[in-house]
Amino acid sequence: MTKIKVAILGASGYTGSELLRFLVNHPRVELSYLTADRSAGKKLHEVLPVFKDIIDIKLHPLETGKIPDNIDFAFTALPHGTSANIVKYLYEKGIKVVDLGADFRLSYKVYKEWYGQHPCPELIDKAVYGLPELSRAKIKKTRIVANPGCYPESSILPLAPLLKNEIIKSNTIIIDSKSGVSGAGRSADLAFNFCEVNEGLKAYKIGEHRHMPEIIEVLSDFSGKKVALNFTPHLIPMDRGILSTVYVDLKKKMNTNELLSVYNKFYKKEKFIRIMPENVYPSTHQVRGSNFCDIGCKVILQQKKAIIISVIDNLVKGASGQAVQNMNIMMGFPEDTGLNIPPVFP
Amino acid sequence: MTKIKVAILGASGYTGSELLRFLVNHPRVELSYLTADRSAGKKLHEVLPVFKDIIDIKLHPLETGKIPDNIDFAFTALPHGTSANIVKYLYEKGIKVVDLGADFRLSYKVYKEWYGQHPCPELIDKAVYGLPELSRAKIKKTRIVANPGCYPESSILPLAPLLKNEIIKSNTIIIDSKSGVSGAGRSADLAFNFCEVNEGLKAYKIGEHRHMPEIIEVLSDFSGKKVALNFTPHLIPMDRGILSTVYVDLKKKMNTNELLSVYNKFYKKEKFIRIMPENVYPSTHQVRGSNFCDIGCKVILQQKKAIIISVIDNLVKGASGQAVQNMNIMMGFPEDTGLNIPPVFP
Amino acid sequence: MTKIKVAILGASGYTGSELLRFLVNHPRVELSYLTADRSAGKKLHEVLPVFKDIIDIKLHPLETGKIPDNIDFAFTALPHGTSANIVKYLYEKGIKVVDLGADFRLSYKVYKEWYGQHPCPELIDKAVYGLPELSRAKIKKTRIVANPGCYPESSILPLAPLLKNEIIKSNTIIIDSKSGVSGAGRSADLAFNFCEVNEGLKAYKIGEHRHMPEIIEVLSDFSGKKVALNFTPHLIPMDRGILSTVYVDLKKKMNTNELLSVYNKFYKKEKFIRIMPENVYPSTHQVRGSNFCDIGCKVILQQKKAIIISVIDNLVKGASGQAVQNMNIMMGFPEDTGLNIPPVFP
Amino acid sequence: MTKIKVAILGASGYTGSELLRFLVNHPRVELSYLTADRSAGKKLHEVLPVFKDIIDIKLHPLETGKIPDNIDFAFTALPHGTSANIVKYLYEKGIKVVDLGADFRLSYKVYKEWYGQHPCPELIDKAVYGLPELSRAKIKKTRIVANPGCYPESSILPLAPLLKNEIIKSNTIIIDSKSGVSGAGRSADLAFNFCEVNEGLKAYKIGEHRHMPEIIEVLSDFSGKKVALNFTPHLIPMDRGILSTVYVDLKKKMNTNELLSVYNKFYKKEKFIRIMPENVYPSTHQVRGSNFCDIGCKVILQQKKAIIISVIDNLVKGASGQAVQNMNIMMGFPEDTGLNIPPVFP
Repeated sequence: MTKIKVAILGASGYTGSELLRFLVNHPRVELSYLTADRSAGKKLHEVLPVFKDIIDIKLHPLETGKIPDNIDFAFTALPHGTSANIVKYLYEKGIKVVDLGADFRLSYKVYKEWYGQHPCPELIDKAVYGLPELSRAKIKKTRIVANPGCYPESSILPLAPLLKNEIIKSNTIIIDSKSGVSGAGRSADLAFNFCEVNEGLKAYKIGEHRHMPEIIEVLSDFSGKKVALNFTPHLIPMDRGILSTVYVDLKKKMNTNELLSVYNKFYKKEKFIRIMPENVYPSTHQVRGSNFCDIGCKVILQQKKAIIISVIDNLVKGASGQAVQNMNIMMGFPEDTGLNIPPVFP
Repeated sequence: MTKIKVAILGASGYTGSELLRFLVNHPRVELSYLTADRSAGKKLHEVLPVFKDIIDIKLHPLETGKIPDNIDFAFTALPHGTSANIVKYLYEKGIKVVDLGADFRLSYKVYKEWYGQHPCPELIDKAVYGLPELSRAKIKKTRIVANPGCYPESSILPLAPLLKNEIIKSNTIIIDSKSGVSGAGRSADLAFNFCEVNEGLKAYKIGEHRHMPEIIEVLSDFSGKKVALNFTPHLIPMDRGILSTVYVDLKKKMNTNELLSVYNKFYKKEKFIRIMPENVYPSTHQVRGSNFCDIGCKVILQQKKAIIISVIDNLVKGASGQAVQNMNIMMGFPEDTGLNIPPVFP
Repeated sequence: MTKIKVAILGASGYTGSELLRFLVNHPRVELSYLTADRSAGKKLHEVLPVFKDIIDIKLHPLETGKIPDNIDFAFTALPHGTSANIVKYLYEKGIKVVDLGADFRLSYKVYKEWYGQHPCPELIDKAVYGLPELSRAKIKKTRIVANPGCYPESSILPLAPLLKNEIIKSNTIIIDSKSGVSGAGRSADLAFNFCEVNEGLKAYKIGEHRHMPEIIEVLSDFSGKKVALNFTPHLIPMDRGILSTVYVDLKKKMNTNELLSVYNKFYKKEKFIRIMPENVYPSTHQVRGSNFCDIGCKVILQQKKAIIISVIDNLVKGASGQAVQNMNIMMGFPEDTGLNIPPVFP
Repeated sequence: MTKIKVAILGASGYTGSELLRFLVNHPRVELSYLTADRSAGKKLHEVLPVFKDIIDIKLHPLETGKIPDNIDFAFTALPHGTSANIVKYLYEKGIKVVDLGADFRLSYKVYKEWYGQHPCPELIDKAVYGLPELSRAKIKKTRIVANPGCYPESSILPLAPLLKNEIIKSNTIIIDSKSGVSGAGRSADLAFNFCEVNEGLKAYKIGEHRHMPEIIEVLSDFSGKKVALNFTPHLIPMDRGILSTVYVDLKKKMNTNELLSVYNKFYKKEKFIRIMPENVYPSTHQVRGSNFCDIGCKVILQQKKAIIISVIDNLVKGASGQAVQNMNIMMGFPEDTGLNIPPVFP
């Protein structure tokens, strides 16, 4: 099989590391070019010792002019703002790209409101939001995919079927999300020092997290309804995993099994979505290291409320696994190529 | 100062251990009698090495007939069902007791529904629910205190002021609680083995946890309103701490600062309740090992919603510290005696 | 490619789970038969939810008579004692087996001393100790492999080259090992409850651990020297990983680089052994989930001492990955088939 | 009782926080002055929320000129080098000080070798190494105490009785130490980010840690022997605790019980040293949050080796608790004032 030459721009962080884990054994991928601005000149294994004797590549600085011409596909795992200009460069070169940052996830208006002036507004319409379970056809045709944020991934997947099927009220949704620490990225910051995070938990950015407008926009677009919701993220003392507890009001009476069959039907053909049986709620343990999103739920009959639990590995289905899945679609590879790795437990 | 002779029935678990930590330095308490059924005959420090060279007491089996007559006060930290009969014995002997179990927290009817037939229904009315911030006067006069459950402690304290002041709708409350593992007690159970719990989280007993009716009854009694709510507990990979994220609908428009002043006013004289300033949300880190309940909140103006965050140490304000506070009140000691220990960080 | 039918006897524990993780994607393996005595009758994913929608197999009770005749290869992950009789049955049926237990790791005499009477002494000589880096040729020819213990794996690999090359004194070796909790297996035991293990560490079975005679016998056999050593295991609050700190006396003066070149030469062709450069000591982080053993060292010149650090994932190179590597050798598959999975970080 | 006015210079780190935890309830101490250079101007509880509503003090910048004249006693918890000049200022002002840094722990010559030129060599002889179990009389008389490093505290206490009693060889000692992450201090550093540290362990600075010469000098001085040893520190994924595994060669045959009685005799009157019975090895769990050092041991008869296990809380007996103990001695208070707090478990 021929291989495509792949670049990862921003390879030394946690999402970069996960991209490498999935791509190194991908039968259609040749890892060709890696950048890591602060570690340029070093060998990859000096900053990510896991790859010693596995990947023998030098890290380059992030300079568009130096990206080799023969690259077929790129992943950008860069701070927002920085990303947009790199994506523009790649787009103009004709290199397909999955951007793991936030620059192409939102409409012009909402981006401006939450992140500030967009660096390349002209490209926003070229990009497709990369959630294959909702928009596979569009991903197939685009050259720029905006990879979903981790919280949105874990929130949209449990909500989309319910909104699309008009089963729930669209303006009383509450999402209570709990994330492992790797979601904060790989950088020196006292707030994420071991002793500051370990053995405790907290909520943060209540009603103000930038992933909230992303969830709202994507769900509104997909369902054709004006979605209003409440999003509260929490930081949990663990490396990986997001569990979102979603509270919704049912429009009509239905029981847990009926709700589960909505999910089973909607996601019937989806390889990376697993629906739990009644009375079983998924734990993040059961998806760690894998590209699965597992969903369970419970209906409280007398209140016409449903509580839905979704779990993902924030670095996989919430970032790099999702990105590889998007690449596979964009390149016409079988969608699960390189992603058939079972979760790691314990 | 004279000292009272205190017994702890069920001293070898986590709540027993915490009782000992607070009582060993309590200036009005002499630790007289400890039971631990499965470890009877051993020295305390053989099952709780922390107390080596601090408490030199042998553990007794749990037999009412063997409880010494000169005991002035008892704490029962026993499985529900077992507890009720011991409490009855103590009551008849005239020994005041704080029961850390569930046997006297609920009305006859609700107990029956959630736990089964009550072993001593005649005593239910003698017992007072031991949340001093709501019912200090009654605690002062009773001989049996039902110590609150850990989740109820963390849920009732943030909700009581809002219900009492008629600020929120009483039937749309959502409580999303996250607890450390010590809440499950000290026993051999695969479900709580290190590798089953560490590095992951899950929801459990959604809408079915026995602490839910406790929260509802106490809040309904206190506020005089019929409270309806949704309670979802989660297990977090940490030893101690409960963080409850409470979602409420405001009856009228108010901002975060106005909501905070409701709390500040209601808890003005309470030594163990600390209200965070605007934009600060408490972490369980800041109460670990202490008897504090810290509360912060955020109003989402356009939705007339408020999100309230409360944190406690489940073993202290959620169990043993609360129990000592109740003893102090029942015995006429200054309420914070033995409890003025700052939190332990990190 | 044709596939062999594989049985795992004892599939529901941590080593069973890891075998499944590696075998499910192994191109030459068909998972045919799984036992799990206490969960017999259940589906695999009911006890190991990670495998939902990946492996759809029912768990059988452990009865030799029920093992299907068409099995080509078996892994036994059973308590010692139990294992031996199963292995005997398989041997007589002509089914090759890797035993992950302790029953065939030791000589008759040493087994008796440390474990008691051996159930099938006649088979001891048929079995080969399965450390391919030391005895690949023998593994190729045997029908029973005794898979190394996790501590021995992490201790023998750093010591074998030094003893074989007569670089160190054979009777002053000290091994200070630190293991994650999964090494204790998957069972209900208060000693391994989350709160008993988390946030603390301890030494145990000092000079008495059953892995000590295993290390001594294997190293003595391999080097032809009478090895004497001191082994102290410690329990570390983490899921996976063993780090062994090995203290040795050098027979002659040499520096760190010279010592490293001994390792580099000895393990030159070994795919799963990685030698760190000078001044770099491996962390268990860098091998988690993978079949690597990473080794680093430091010579203290003035004392003619060397300190060697080895790290493995106790469940992979210390158990199930090693077992699959042994199967590959026994069956004539490329040795790394199914094991080319990079470590998982973070 | 009259109170002394106490200053903490460097109050916002982990050792500063622990000093505050012990001093806030110390009956002879009034917290008068706190500095925290990077947080100057803030209230203490803004950087250490544990102290909200407990300590209402503003943080000052670190400027000698601004230290109030009425301070009676000071603790310095500052980087080495910085500390020395502050200590000099305090000394000249006649303010007694416990320095938690490294500036006065070593002789002039050894300091120069390991830390560089000493800022105030003239003061080195005025300072006393603050390990009361070895040098209580000197501490009583000095105005400058150099508080021991955390690793030395955990290493010297198990070794001193054996060297003093000439029971072990003084030049073949091996110390394998394992420390929680708080030992690295409270600062932004990628190496101590949660995901870099959690779920793994590593050795570091093998034979090069600055605490090694401290251990050697103190033990040599105390025993009158030239001590040579090997020190390897490891970083463990937990907040607090040091466990040191010490390997020694016995000069003559003795069994475990005989060795234990050496300890029991040597430390008979010591309130903060607890000796475990035979076959019990201490866990760091049993000292967390307390000023205890617990010691257990095992003799390997045939090798004439002993393995000694010592555990401390690195922030308490390894830092701030030890510092308060030293202050008590220097000020003539009962030595355990403010330190009678049981360990916190779990």
